[in-house]
Amino acid sequence: MEERIILSMLMDYYGGLLTDKQRDIMNLYFNDDLSLAEISQLTKTSRQAIHDIIKRCQKQLYEYENVLGLLNKNSELLKIKQTINEMLNTFIEYDDFDKEKTIEFVIKLKNYINENL
Amino acid sequence: MEERIILSMLMDYYGGLLTDKQRDIMNLYFNDDLSLAEISQLTKTSRQAIHDIIKRCQKQLYEYENVLGLLNKNSELLKIKQTINEMLNTFIEYDDFDKEKTIEFVIKLKNYINENL
Repeated sequence: MEERIILSMLMDYYGGLLTDKQRDIMNLYFNDDLSLAEISQLTKTSRQAIHDIIKRCQKQLYEYENVLGLLNKNSELLKIKQTINEMLNTFIEYDDFDKEKTIEFVIKLKNYINENL
Repeated sequence: MEERIILSMLMDYYGGLLTDKQRDIMNLYFNDDLSLAEISQLTKTSRQAIHDIIKRCQKQLYEYENVLGLLNKNSELLKIKQTINEMLNTFIEYDDFDKEKTIEFVIKLKNYINENL
């Protein structure tokens, strides 16, 4: 995945842990796609200071992900959701729906959910 | 829920965001149930300093939960898991398993999963 997209996602998860000023600058850069010069003008802060804040926050966001792993956990959850959907799709494509087969499927699904969710 | 248990759970989620020293002291206090005097002796730190660290960390942990809400999200996930299990249990208690009823159930379950998970 492109780093810009990863950072925009990390901001969604951990942006609340940054200060207001840090968050504003990161959003202007990663979500609104403004240049350092534009952010510098808008926030009346030197270009170098903006550059340093962005670099420091990037490092901080990766550290949060390293400790809490929310991006990773969410991606795992999406995979689990997809697998459950696929199991259900396969199940309703069965030709016959006898009790034994249905119970077998439900047990398999419950085991998957209890082990993974 | 008792505050001690909540704090122990908050430590599970956010302990990694504290410094090593803070985490050690919080674990000694909330997970190993040591007294301030015992922690003071063990860490060669004044009782007052230990008290202050614990108070500051407690505040910090609640702030993390306030921003990230992981405890709350996990409790939501447990409820969703329980509901899915209940839906599956009710389903296999049906007396007959005709195609129509099964497809109806699967669609209902898929909708619930896609809306809540």
